[in-house]
Amino acid sequence: MTHLATLDRLFSEMPPVAAMQIRAAQFDGDCLRLAAPLAANVNDKNCAFGGSLASLMTLAGWGWLMLKLREAGIEAEVYVADSSIRYLAPLYDDLTGEARLREGQDWENILRCLRERKRARVAMRSEMSDAAGIPVATLEARFALKFAADR
Amino acid sequence: MTHLATLDRLFSEMPPVAAMQIRAAQFDGDCLRLAAPLAANVNDKNCAFGGSLASLMTLAGWGWLMLKLREAGIEAEVYVADSSIRYLAPLYDDLTGEARLREGQDWENILRCLRERKRARVAMRSEMSDAAGIPVATLEARFALKFAADR
Repeated sequence: MTHLATLDRLFSEMPPVAAMQIRAAQFDGDCLRLAAPLAANVNDKNCAFGGSLASLMTLAGWGWLMLKLREAGIEAEVYVADSSIRYLAPLYDDLTGEARLREGQDWENILRCLRERKRARVAMRSEMSDAAGIPVATLEARFALKFAADR
Repeated sequence: MTHLATLDRLFSEMPPVAAMQIRAAQFDGDCLRLAAPLAANVNDKNCAFGGSLASLMTLAGWGWLMLKLREAGIEAEVYVADSSIRYLAPLYDDLTGEARLREGQDWENILRCLRERKRARVAMRSEMSDAAGIPVATLEARFALKFAADR
């Protein structure tokens, strides 16, 4: 099973995520892209519901970490600790959002810390754009990692 | 139709909110309480999905403003502009969350500003607790109000 398929299986097993039809679209090792149809995520103004944007951007960060931990051979629990979201413009297109490590974060260092101390914190950044590439929302979030086992 | 029923109708018309089964539970003029069943909002760890907490807390602030604007006889659009969320503990119970004006906000002044300038900003605070009353998440959010008409 590919990494994206593994992530999609996890998503499909979470009822609210399945309802929002959020799926893993692409991962290049640095950036994870998720997507979801507007129809499943529309609000009273016929644009995307703010909670769906928050959910997709949070899941993108979480999914990035799940994929990279798997790649590193580490089994760990990943919890979102806090986040700041900016809603820049209404979105009338299907939802797509990308997550990556926040600038200044050193992934190798985070993995080392996680192996040694069994815990680590990591800062992620997600952003969403409309079909024309105009940014519609950003999220900065910190996640807590809890070491479980080497695979 | 009561105010809470009006809000519930709005919620039920938004597919992601309907899927999370978020409903208006109580409103006393200062505080709006929303609720949702855990089963519709569970994640891969069998506790509440972070995106569902973010959605419920954002909607609580939005719903509070919809109710109070209606009470003031004003038709206005209400958009979330930004938010900061803290996830304090995993939640294994049904979801309940409350929103109120942030400390220091003057509602009468905000209404005056909205009538005069046709726009206003307002800061809200939401929090969620588990069944034992232990806080599990907080949200501070700013909303943009856009005057449409006096009712």
